[in-house]
Amino acid sequence: MSAVERQLDELEETITDEVPAGISISDVKYEGPELVIYTRDPKEFAADGDLVRRLASKLRKRITVRPDPDSLSGPETARERIRDIIPEAAGVTDLDFHADTGEVVIEAGKPGMVIGRHGSTLREITQEVGWTPEVVRTPPIESSTVSNVRNFLKQEREDRRDILERVGRQIHREEMADEQWVRITTLGCCREVGRAAFVLSTAETRVLIDCGDKPGAEDEVPYLQVPEALGAGAQNLDAVVLTHAHLDHSALVPLLFKYGYDGPIYCTEPTRDLMGLLTLDYLDVAAKEGRAPPYESGMVREAIKHCIDIEYGDVTDIAPDIKLTLHNAGHILGSSIAHFHVGDGLYNVAFSGDIHYTDTRLFNGAVNEFPRVETLVLESTYGGRNDYQTDQEDSERDLKRVINETYERDGTVLIPAFAVGRSQEIMLVLEEAMREGEIPSMPVHLDGMIWEATAIHTTYPEYLRDDLQDRIFHEDRNPFLADEFNHIDGGEEERQEVADGGPCIVLSTSGMVEGGPIMSWLRHLGPDPDNRMVFVGYQAQGTLGRRIQNGWDEIPMNDRGEGRGGTLTLNLDVETVDGFSGHADRQGLENFVRTMNPRPEKVLCVHGDESSTQDLSSALYHEFNMRTFAPKNLETFRFK
Amino acid sequence: MSAVERQLDELEETITDEVPAGISISDVKYEGPELVIYTRDPKEFAADGDLVRRLASKLRKRITVRPDPDSLSGPETARERIRDIIPEAAGVTDLDFHADTGEVVIEAGKPGMVIGRHGSTLREITQEVGWTPEVVRTPPIESSTVSNVRNFLKQEREDRRDILERVGRQIHREEMADEQWVRITTLGCCREVGRAAFVLSTAETRVLIDCGDKPGAEDEVPYLQVPEALGAGAQNLDAVVLTHAHLDHSALVPLLFKYGYDGPIYCTEPTRDLMGLLTLDYLDVAAKEGRAPPYESGMVREAIKHCIDIEYGDVTDIAPDIKLTLHNAGHILGSSIAHFHVGDGLYNVAFSGDIHYTDTRLFNGAVNEFPRVETLVLESTYGGRNDYQTDQEDSERDLKRVINETYERDGTVLIPAFAVGRSQEIMLVLEEAMREGEIPSMPVHLDGMIWEATAIHTTYPEYLRDDLQDRIFHEDRNPFLADEFNHIDGGEEERQEVADGGPCIVLSTSGMVEGGPIMSWLRHLGPDPDNRMVFVGYQAQGTLGRRIQNGWDEIPMNDRGEGRGGTLTLNLDVETVDGFSGHADRQGLENFVRTMNPRPEKVLCVHGDESSTQDLSSALYHEFNMRTFAPKNLETFRFK
Ligand SMILES: [Zn+2]
Ligand SMILES: [Zn+2]
Ligand SMILES: [Zn+2]
Ligand SMILES: [Zn+2]
Ligand SMILES: [Zn+2]
Repeated sequence: MSAVERQLDELEETITDEVPAGISISDVKYEGPELVIYTRDPKEFAADGDLVRRLASKLRKRITVRPDPDSLSGPETARERIRDIIPEAAGVTDLDFHADTGEVVIEAGKPGMVIGRHGSTLREITQEVGWTPEVVRTPPIESSTVSNVRNFLKQEREDRRDILERVGRQIHREEMADEQWVRITTLGCCREVGRAAFVLSTAETRVLIDCGDKPGAEDEVPYLQVPEALGAGAQNLDAVVLTHAHLDHSALVPLLFKYGYDGPIYCTEPTRDLMGLLTLDYLDVAAKEGRAPPYESGMVREAIKHCIDIEYGDVTDIAPDIKLTLHNAGHILGSSIAHFHVGDGLYNVAFSGDIHYTDTRLFNGAVNEFPRVETLVLESTYGGRNDYQTDQEDSERDLKRVINETYERDGTVLIPAFAVGRSQEIMLVLEEAMREGEIPSMPVHLDGMIWEATAIHTTYPEYLRDDLQDRIFHEDRNPFLADEFNHIDGGEEERQEVADGGPCIVLSTSGMVEGGPIMSWLRHLGPDPDNRMVFVGYQAQGTLGRRIQNGWDEIPMNDRGEGRGGTLTLNLDVETVDGFSGHADRQGLENFVRTMNPRPEKVLCVHGDESSTQDLSSALYHEFNMRTFAPKNLETFRFK
Repeated sequence: MSAVERQLDELEETITDEVPAGISISDVKYEGPELVIYTRDPKEFAADGDLVRRLASKLRKRITVRPDPDSLSGPETARERIRDIIPEAAGVTDLDFHADTGEVVIEAGKPGMVIGRHGSTLREITQEVGWTPEVVRTPPIESSTVSNVRNFLKQEREDRRDILERVGRQIHREEMADEQWVRITTLGCCREVGRAAFVLSTAETRVLIDCGDKPGAEDEVPYLQVPEALGAGAQNLDAVVLTHAHLDHSALVPLLFKYGYDGPIYCTEPTRDLMGLLTLDYLDVAAKEGRAPPYESGMVREAIKHCIDIEYGDVTDIAPDIKLTLHNAGHILGSSIAHFHVGDGLYNVAFSGDIHYTDTRLFNGAVNEFPRVETLVLESTYGGRNDYQTDQEDSERDLKRVINETYERDGTVLIPAFAVGRSQEIMLVLEEAMREGEIPSMPVHLDGMIWEATAIHTTYPEYLRDDLQDRIFHEDRNPFLADEFNHIDGGEEERQEVADGGPCIVLSTSGMVEGGPIMSWLRHLGPDPDNRMVFVGYQAQGTLGRRIQNGWDEIPMNDRGEGRGGTLTLNLDVETVDGFSGHADRQGLENFVRTMNPRPEKVLCVHGDESSTQDLSSALYHEFNMRTFAPKNLETFRFK
C-alpha cells in the first residue's frame, strides 16, 4: 500500500468517526488539491449545513462531497425537482448530469440565485435529489471561447478525472527530502520585458511560474533547456502557475506539453479561457507571418485540460511543502499575484506578475496584504526613474476632447487597441461619457478579438471592480451591453459601410498596428484628413504603430494581415493619449512596496529593461532599506 | 558518419599532406584530449625532430605519435636496443611493452636522463626501434600507493583506452548549443569550510569542480541531487576537475561513479595518487568509526581509472567550448588552481582551490598570472579580518627552541601532523636544523600514513619547490632520505622501544588527535612530564586535539583508533607553534589578488566560514573596487 493510500484510509476513518451516525462514507479520493468524499447518504450530509466546514477545518483540506452513484435519483426526476427549487429569475440555461461523479452542472444567467443565501439553495437541491450541484454563469454576451472551453472540458471529463487523481496523489505524497531550502531560478524576463519564466524550487518540489514569449523577438524564448527547468526531464517539474494570460507570460505554456510535461497548471478561470484565446491567436499570427509555430493547437487543448482553476484568496496545496494563493493583481482579467507559502512556516515568496496598484475602471487595485512574505519578485515595466504616467482622469479628458473635435468635423476616431484589457477600459470610458452627455452618442465599432474578449469579461464579473460587478449583475445597467457598441462581424463589407457612414468610433486590433483588421481600417479611414487616429497604449520600438506615432505618413502595405500591398498615404491626424496603462508606473510600484503589509525583506526587480530594473532596485534599497536585486536571466537565488 | 568521424577523416588528410613523402599515416584517433597519430613509419617520423611540434601548432591539438603495431620490431630486440641507448646512470628499473599501442613504458630513477636534452634520447629510441617511449619515475622511496596505481592502470589498459576514446569523442563533438552563457553553481563550500563542489556550466557543457566532504559533519555532503548537478542524471556532467587531494575536495569523487558518472576526472598525477591514498583511508576510518561508508573501495578504483592527468601549464580541451589549465597552488603536492577558458575568448574563470601565496619549503607560491581571467573563485579559510599568521621563520625558531629544551631534559617531542603536506614541511625543517647543527641530531620517527605520503612526494619532485627538486634529483642530498628519518613499521613493539629509548622526535597522524597511531603515542609518552606535545596545525572545534590544546589533561581513551578505554592523565607539556599552514593568511589572500595579473573583475569568496568570506569579500571590494560576493550554497551566478 502506498503512503497516499494509507493516508486516504486514515482520512476515511477519521471522517467516518466525525460524521453523524447514519451517514455512511463509501470512498475518499484526492482530485487535484481537493479531497472528495463519496457518501451513500448525500441528502443527510447536506442536511447538516455546517458539516463540510467542520470537516475542512479539522482535516485542513479543501473538501467536496459527492453522492455515491448508487444512491442517486434518476436524472429525469432530478431535473424536474431542481427546476422547481431554483427561482425562475435565476435564468437557468442548461442542466448537465454526470452520473459517474454524481455532479450536476447548472448553467445560469444569475448564478447567485442558484446558490442562494450562504449556499442554502444548493443545499436544498442536494437534500432533495442527492446530486452535487456545480454552478457556472451563462455568459451575458455569447463567447465562443467560453463555450468551446466548457464543451471541451465536458468531453474530456474522464481523462481529466484521471489527471486530477494523479495530481492529487502527487500533491499529497510523502515528503522525501530531508533538507530544507528555497530557491528561485530566473529563466527569462530579467533585464528585459518578455519571456517571463521562473522556477521556485525546494529540496522537494519545483514550480514553474509563467512561460511566455518575448514580443518582437520570437527566437528569444525562456531558457527551458537548462537542468533546473526541463533539462532534467519534464517530470522534474511539479506544477506550473500562470499569473495571467498575456502572451509574454503564457505563450509557451502549451509548449511544455509538447516537451512531455503532464502536470497541473494553476490559474484563475478567466486566465485559463484567455490563455486559450490568446495562444490560439498566437499560432494564427505565426502562421500568417510564415513562421513555424512552436507547437500545434492540440497542445493548447492539452494545456486547458491540465488547468486547475483557483479563486483569489483560496489557499491551495500544490505540493507536500508548498501552498499557493492567488491574489488580484489589477492588471487584466483574472491576473494574479502568486503567493507561495513554503514548508511549515519556512518561507514565503510572492510573484507580482504584472500589476496595477491603483483602481482602474475595470479592476480593483493590486492586493498587497499577505499573511507573510519575505521575498517579492516585482515587475518593473515602468520602474525607470522617469517612468511617471499621466493621471487617468487627465487622459480621459483628453480622449473626450479628441472625440468631440473629430465629431464636430464629421470625422471618425480610429483607436488601435489590445483586445484584452485596454479595449474594455476604453469602452467603459466611452459608455460613461455618452451616458453623461460629455460626448455625443454615436456607434462604437469593435473589430478583431475585442468583442470576444469583452464577452469573456462579462462571464467572470467577480474578477471586475466591485461597482462594475454590481452593474453587470443588473442586465439593464451592464455597460458592455450599451446600444452604441457594435460587433464588426460582417467583414470588409461592414467596414466599408461604417467608413461611408456618419461620425463614429472604431476600436480595432492589433494594438501596435502589426496586422489584424486595423490595417483594413487604415485603408478605409487613413486618406480622409477629417478622421483621427488615437494611440492609447504603449507602442514598442520597431512596430508600425510607433512609426505612425512618430510621423510616418507613407505606409507600405504588404500582404501581411489585411494589408494588400502598395503604399498608403495617411492624411488623418494622429494623436497619443497616455495614461491607460495596465501597469503601475514608477510611483505605483513604489507605493505598492511602501504600503505592502508585511514589508518584504528582499525584492527581485524583473520584467523591465536593464535600466528600469536597476533604477527600481536601487530606489527601493535606498528608500526602504531592503535587500534588492536586478537579476540576470539564468541565475539562482537562495533564500533559505 | 558522425561529425567526429568526419573531423578525424579531415585531420588524417591534413596530416598526410603535411608530413614528408614517405611517411604513411595509418590511423588518427582521439584519446581523451589528445590526438593520436598512428604511422607505419615511426622511425622516419621521429627523424624530423620538429614535426610533431609543427603539426600540433597547425592543428591546435595535443599530439601523440604511435607506431602502427604492424611496423614494430619485436619487444625482445627492442628491449636490448633501448638498454643500449639509455645511459646506465639513468637507473632503468622496468621496461613494459604494450604491443596494442606500440608504447613502451620506461621506469627509471632519473627520468631526465631517459628523455635526454630536448627529448633527444627518446627520439633516438623511436628512430632505432619504432616504439613510442613513455617515461615514469621510479619512486626514490618505495610507495605502495604509486605502485598499486601503476599496476592497476596497467591491468586496466584496454578498458582505459575505451574510456579515453569515448571521452575524446565527447570532447571533440560538434557544438550543439546556439546560445552562449557562462554560469557557476555552488553545491557546497560556501560560508563554510568543507564539501567543496562547484558546477561551471555553459549552454553546451557542465563541469564539476571538486567533490569533497565536510570534516566533522559527515552528513553534510555537497548538494549533488539538484538538477544542476546529478539530479538531471549523471550524463549531465561532461567532466570533473579535481584541484587537489584533500578530502574536503576529493572524498566524494568516487561516489559520482556509484551514481552513474562515467566521464573523466582531470587532475595532476600526484593528486590522482594522493586521492587514492586518502579516499581509501577515508573508507577505513568510516568503517572503524562504525559509519556506513558512502561507497565501496571499487569506486576509488573506478575514479582512478577515469583520471586524465595533466601537468601544470598544459592547455587542455575538455569540451568543445572549454579549455582547462592547471597551475601550481602552493598548497599540497599536486594542488592546482583550475583555469577555464570558455568559448573562443568568451570568458575566463579561475578556481583557486586552496592556495598558499608565498613560497614554503616544499612548494613554490601559488601562480597568479593568467592569459586572461574575469572571475576568480577564491578560498577564504583565513579571510577573516584578524586571520594573520605567524611568520614561518619565527615559527621554525620556536619549534627548534622547544626541541632543544625537551632534548636537554632528555624528553621526547610528539607532533601530531597531517600525513600530506605539513609533515613533509616539518621534516624539511628538522632535516635542515640537524644538518646545520641548530638542534642535535636524533631519530625522527614517522608513524601513520606520513611515510607513504612522503614517498609519493619524492615520486613527483617536479611538483616541489625548485631548489628542493634539485636536491631530490641528487640522491645523496635528498632531504627525505636523511638517516634520522625512521618509518615506524613495527607496530606497538617498535613504539614501546622508541618510548623506552633516548630523546627523539615523533611525527604521527591523525593531525587533530582523532584516532590513528597518535592515540598510542599519547599512552606511551603522555605520562612523562619531560616530554612535550607540539601542535603545528589547525585544531578544529570539537576535536580532541583542540581540547588538549585548551588544557584538558584527563583524556578518556575509548576504543576508537588505538585507544584502549579508561582515562589517561597527561603530564607532558603542551605547546602550540603556529605558522606552518598550507593556506595563505588574510595578508596572503589580499596579496594574491593585489598582484594578480590580470586583475579579475569579480571574486567569489568561498571555502571559509560566514564571517571570513564576508570579511574578505568586503575587503577586496573596498581595496580593489571589484565586484565581490560571499555566495551561499545552491546559488547560481551568471557571468556572460
Ligand atoms: Zn456530461
Ligand atoms: Zn501582462
Ligand atoms: Zn507582462
Ligand atoms: Zn586543501
Ligand atoms: Zn580545502
